Amino acid sequence: MSVPETFHGWLAHDAKAAQGNLQWQSFAPKPFAETDIDIKITHCGICGTDIHTLRSGWGPTHYPICVGHEIVGHVARIGSASSRRFQVGDRVGVGAQAASCLRADCEECSAGMEQHCGKGFVGTYNGQYRESGYWSMGGYADYVRVPAPFAVKIPERLASADAAPMMCGGITVYAPLKKNGAGPGKKVGIVGLGGLGHFGVLFAKALECEKVVAISRSRSKAKDAQAMGADEFIATSEDEKWERKHSRTLDLIVSTVSSPDMPLSGYLRLLRTNGQFIQVGAPEDKLPAIAAFTLIAKGCKIGGSQIGSPREIEEMLRFAAEKGVRPWVQQRRMSEANRSVVDMEDGRARYRYVLVNEDHAKL
Amino acid sequence: MSVPETFHGWLAHDAKAAQGNLQWQSFAPKPFAETDIDIKITHCGICGTDIHTLRSGWGPTHYPICVGHEIVGHVARIGSASSRRFQVGDRVGVGAQAASCLRADCEECSAGMEQHCGKGFVGTYNGQYRESGYWSMGGYADYVRVPAPFAVKIPERLASADAAPMMCGGITVYAPLKKNGAGPGKKVGIVGLGGLGHFGVLFAKALECEKVVAISRSRSKAKDAQAMGADEFIATSEDEKWERKHSRTLDLIVSTVSSPDMPLSGYLRLLRTNGQFIQVGAPEDKLPAIAAFTLIAKGCKIGGSQIGSPREIEEMLRFAAEKGVRPWVQQRRMSEANRSVVDMEDGRARYRYVLVNEDHAKL
Repeated sequence: MSVPETFHGWLAHDAKAAQGNLQWQSFAPKPFAETDIDIKITHCGICGTDIHTLRSGWGPTHYPICVGHEIVGHVARIGSASSRRFQVGDRVGVGAQAASCLRADCEECSAGMEQHCGKGFVGTYNGQYRESGYWSMGGYADYVRVPAPFAVKIPERLASADAAPMMCGGITVYAPLKKNGAGPGKKVGIVGLGGLGHFGVLFAKALECEKVVAISRSRSKAKDAQAMGADEFIATSEDEKWERKHSRTLDLIVSTVSSPDMPLSGYLRLLRTNGQFIQVGAPEDKLPAIAAFTLIAKGCKIGGSQIGSPREIEEMLRFAAEKGVRPWVQQRRMSEANRSVVDMEDGRARYRYVLVNEDHAKL
Repeated sequence: MSVPETFHGWLAHDAKAAQGNLQWQSFAPKPFAETDIDIKITHCGICGTDIHTLRSGWGPTHYPICVGHEIVGHVARIGSASSRRFQVGDRVGVGAQAASCLRADCEECSAGMEQHCGKGFVGTYNGQYRESGYWSMGGYADYVRVPAPFAVKIPERLASADAAPMMCGGITVYAPLKKNGAGPGKKVGIVGLGGLGHFGVLFAKALECEKVVAISRSRSKAKDAQAMGADEFIATSEDEKWERKHSRTLDLIVSTVSSPDMPLSGYLRLLRTNGQFIQVGAPEDKLPAIAAFTLIAKGCKIGGSQIGSPREIEEMLRFAAEKGVRPWVQQRRMSEANRSVVDMEDGRARYRYVLVNEDHAKL
């Protein structure tokens, strides 16, 4: 496979791009390092972070930018000093992280927690590579160039359109579920039924949790949640006294919502003794203040979790392949990126849009 | 040993009692149940909760009340249906909890987490027993009557004056240290160097943590902290850029302070990846609001912890006896309760006052 010197992708030039003003243009990829690989992109999921970044919601974005970090494609070029894990043609995926320092004296990298590397974390887009100063460019494109350690092979039994949104949306909820003991005998709640939340229900179920409860504002997605495997549904703006009725029923809650006025104290009431509440959605504002007694009286914890390491992503993909976990995706042509970004922002995704490069894959 | 029908203790009749207006008076103890024991009190520590309760700081207190829940004394009477664990004359202790439902179908009691029992928790004072409706009375007294399951034997090698403040102050910090992995290779911070915090330093050291850091506002207690075994000292109102300088250095922080304007975000910066911050001090107001990113970026957790179960208290006492943990206590005569409460409130304790009943023990 030969890789063009110039890549093409949907570029954003300012915050208005979030309203559907992306432009399909050519751009120069980062200089090829011998530890890199090039991937010919077939699929790329649309993640909420794409929108936050397009509109500079979490801080100023470095424009022009090409977003997208739920990438699946085929290895097209392998650097000479790159991993022997890959061969040209292999089907691989890249998630939200493209690099970390990977030094032996980094306490995060050396312990397989590359996603928490404090020295060299580079996001798959809007991140700056130390060596070249190049700003990373994501997957709404024909090709992507990334350091090989952050690409993973996709198991054969997993369809590319299903694997793509797992690279960020999937791992973001799979990792905290796994790390905090979701499994047989455990009762688990998932707050928010968007792209992340729907993965939460699917994975909690596949992990054989005793009970999976979907928690949303309204009842509009109750039927979908049930079809995904949820055993119960709580609608916090419709069910009266839901905090009281479901008090002390859950061991673990993974919250995917990012509204700063979420009813956090109410969610905490749902926890059993020693229960844990893990926030993975990142509000652009602070979390609501809570009373220390809320945590003390039941020995509860509030935590955060950020994507997963390449090894955790591989583990998740194996698990999904084994258990036949199938996300609810809506495939769109890569040419429909603008409409899809707008539809995503309007909350129309059921539950993840995946852009498909028609030149590289069949839709 | 014969037990008088009427007990005597320092009674509070209203919130002014916190200013040193306790009155030594007689009171009727709860009706003796055959599952109870009576304890002839020799020692009782003065805990911050005593003061909060005397002044109705956490909500309305049921007056008249006798506070004190760091009790050590000798078993003077044993109910016929009571535990065979005790004999008259045994030296025992009682902490902040006097009862729970203890039912086999209680998920907390059946799992040895009596301190989190949602149905029948009765505090050693200011709690109401279901059966008799009686309000519990604490240890600033000559005798105390409690359900036997909440008394524990004191190991021989532990002095009564040392064991008393462990019953609440000690277990409140020992339990979260133990539960969250404090030990060899771990770097631990203790916020606040009062009665609880000084136990935190002592226990973290005895647990052989790699590094123990005392964190206080001013440097005034730095020398004491060092003498207790602290390896480092951070003064948050005096050390410039302390959050930055000590960023990502601690695995676990136990916070004993109860000021609602504590620099929580700063404390969280001190945590390493996957670090935990456990709050045991209970502010009368909410905790400061924090950004979700603070937890997400490092995979950190904020938790709470509440005293410990009778089994955990026994484990702590054995550990303290084995390791020779000796708290810094100042013994005061029981007759000096009023002065001691005022001194405690004024922050003069170095680091725990223990009232001694001169009629029952030598000072």
